[in-house]
Amino acid sequence: MTASRIVLIVLDGIGDRPHPALRGATPLSAARTPVLDRLAREGITGIMDTIGPGIRPGSDTSHLALLGYPPRECYTGRGPLEAEGSGIRMRPGMVGFRANYATLDADGRVVDRRAGRIHGTEPLSKAIEEAVDLSRFGVRFQFVSGAGHRAALALEGEGLGDGVGSNDPKKEGAFPHEFEPLTGTEADAKTAAVLNEFVHQARQVLADHPVNRRRAGEGLLPANEVLIRGAGRMGEFQPFRERYGLAGAVVSAATLITGIGKVVGLDPIHVEGATGSIDSNIEGKVAAAIEALETHSFVLLNIKGADEAGHDGKAEQKRDFIVRVDAALAPFLDVTETVIAVMGDHSTPCTVKDHSADPVPVLVHGEGVRPDRVDRYDEFACAEGGLCRITGCDILPILLDLIDKAHKYGA
Amino acid sequence: MTASRIVLIVLDGIGDRPHPALRGATPLSAARTPVLDRLAREGITGIMDTIGPGIRPGSDTSHLALLGYPPRECYTGRGPLEAEGSGIRMRPGMVGFRANYATLDADGRVVDRRAGRIHGTEPLSKAIEEAVDLSRFGVRFQFVSGAGHRAALALEGEGLGDGVGSNDPKKEGAFPHEFEPLTGTEADAKTAAVLNEFVHQARQVLADHPVNRRRAGEGLLPANEVLIRGAGRMGEFQPFRERYGLAGAVVSAATLITGIGKVVGLDPIHVEGATGSIDSNIEGKVAAAIEALETHSFVLLNIKGADEAGHDGKAEQKRDFIVRVDAALAPFLDVTETVIAVMGDHSTPCTVKDHSADPVPVLVHGEGVRPDRVDRYDEFACAEGGLCRITGCDILPILLDLIDKAHKYGA
Repeated sequence: MTASRIVLIVLDGIGDRPHPALRGATPLSAARTPVLDRLAREGITGIMDTIGPGIRPGSDTSHLALLGYPPRECYTGRGPLEAEGSGIRMRPGMVGFRANYATLDADGRVVDRRAGRIHGTEPLSKAIEEAVDLSRFGVRFQFVSGAGHRAALALEGEGLGDGVGSNDPKKEGAFPHEFEPLTGTEADAKTAAVLNEFVHQARQVLADHPVNRRRAGEGLLPANEVLIRGAGRMGEFQPFRERYGLAGAVVSAATLITGIGKVVGLDPIHVEGATGSIDSNIEGKVAAAIEALETHSFVLLNIKGADEAGHDGKAEQKRDFIVRVDAALAPFLDVTETVIAVMGDHSTPCTVKDHSADPVPVLVHGEGVRPDRVDRYDEFACAEGGLCRITGCDILPILLDLIDKAHKYGA
Repeated sequence: MTASRIVLIVLDGIGDRPHPALRGATPLSAARTPVLDRLAREGITGIMDTIGPGIRPGSDTSHLALLGYPPRECYTGRGPLEAEGSGIRMRPGMVGFRANYATLDADGRVVDRRAGRIHGTEPLSKAIEEAVDLSRFGVRFQFVSGAGHRAALALEGEGLGDGVGSNDPKKEGAFPHEFEPLTGTEADAKTAAVLNEFVHQARQVLADHPVNRRRAGEGLLPANEVLIRGAGRMGEFQPFRERYGLAGAVVSAATLITGIGKVVGLDPIHVEGATGSIDSNIEGKVAAAIEALETHSFVLLNIKGADEAGHDGKAEQKRDFIVRVDAALAPFLDVTETVIAVMGDHSTPCTVKDHSADPVPVLVHGEGVRPDRVDRYDEFACAEGGLCRITGCDILPILLDLIDKAHKYGA
């Protein structure tokens, strides 16, 4: 029977390069992955440049592409997407930012850009929202906590630009920067001034906050500074349902991915214990995604841990996490009437410790696909697959065609 | 010796998906095709998205792409191409339409959208051309019969738009629609009014026509209505000879393909008994194409029947027709100094009964190609070929390169 639903499983940062510790294998090719291999054997495989050959994708631009929103047309920076994912309802024209709680020493130098990997910063963010006043600029703002040390800021008001730098010195031992406009426009100058004022007032709120007093008592680093980056003006995104005629949902622990899903109109689904790290509740996310397929024709499931291991350069850890992911995906083998697509959003080689432009392996499984001879889901095998080499923006149209939701161009 | 001629053989709708009645094979992969397999073995193969990955091509947009005319730049609707193919000399600015002869019952409801698959409607079209008068709109028109129940209409005059709907209710038992403008412009309103008047007058011509009186006497459905759709303004197409330096010809039973060939300046070659169906005189078309190579450096040969079987969902019939096509293509094995390219214009899976976005297999045979290890022309084998995955607009430049007619970009 023709499938009527799509699940897009993004194994974040899954792609890698040959690693000496794995005798030239990649973490994925070294991992025992019977579930993914069965999907590959029964389905069609290939490799994918999520943006284009040789272009290192961000997680934001790659996910936009995978959802069929060409990032060259609609990407305006990570800030507004993080802000949306953090729970701020971004309206077109608002300027959004990513933020970190950080620790300054007595001299004002950054001693920890993540404030001792603090958790539970909501009282701090609430205090900032209540106390900081930008009304003399005619600006309203929202400031909310994200996962761990992360937060998001959104500004709204007349004449705000989005061409501003960051106060984040990007290294410990340095003083935070002043915000500087990136152009000579009045609008960018205004945003820089607003941000300098925001940080100035926020410091005063944080300096004496009970949360920080308690942390000091426990020997923990205080969250006495806010570092802000990723300025971007919120754009307009054609709603997913209108664009494709499908109700969609997103299951992700990453604020950014949830935010991308939300800006295009996917329903975010919260999963208890989903952390975006290698200790995440993957089984719970898989169950939630399968449940979401009861009410949605499209589900984006992002599983983040492999990317983290790649950034940390831990090849064996990445391999072992992939084994866990594979086992957790087993329930998808019993899902019917569904096209299952598995891919990375980018490679995060353990030898690079950052995203690379190496294409990611992709597989598509379900009624109607033309199986190829590939019987293994990894970077080497999939390069011989029947999809050959596609780009990120190709995948959703290909999947829509399989569930008979593609439009004919011409007659 | 380097080839100096190109034959582009389009097996219309050849691509398919695995079919249960063929135990998971496609009609093409299930067919015995020694001729195509030999061309594949000696040549280079690949898969092709005629428009782009995941985009379902029309026959019109795909053939424009295969001829190297990017449809995004030059496609303006099927109507003007059908009209050209039906014998109307379309000039830039004219508005063209596809039409059907249909049957209305006494209440005015459509009882057959194809008037009992009537043939020989020329006297009806001639009578309409003579009697219908649109001069009060300042509009001239041509109305000519195509194959079977088909016809084409072209309007010419000041201030005519091409943004109009259709009077075709698309289902039997419903009343024909009034033509409606698709925008608020005066031009589209005028075209809608002209079409409503045309249909009104045409009905009066048809009601009492001897052809219909005779059909009534024979118990056949009368052709007492004209259904019109596919409005498009004729664009400008750089002549093929000017664009590529080649004299070209087209051999096709399909009015649309002949029309596309003619608008770009290919000489249409008529073949007796070529029907565009599975009973077509394929041998005659192959002979005509080979003969045309004596006087033309480029021949487009379209063989339509597989598409029809796909639309009808008949997998075995499609397979058997492909066997016949393969045998009919044998004379090409003796053609020299010629690059032979074989491809589909799109897939028409029997499980979908419509065009799909699945890529089509392509092979290129002739002096200079780099043979790959593929020895079989089908969807699975060609996906492993040396051309990898290309688009429709890529193929003609690749073929021109092989006959040394490509231009160097840069120095």
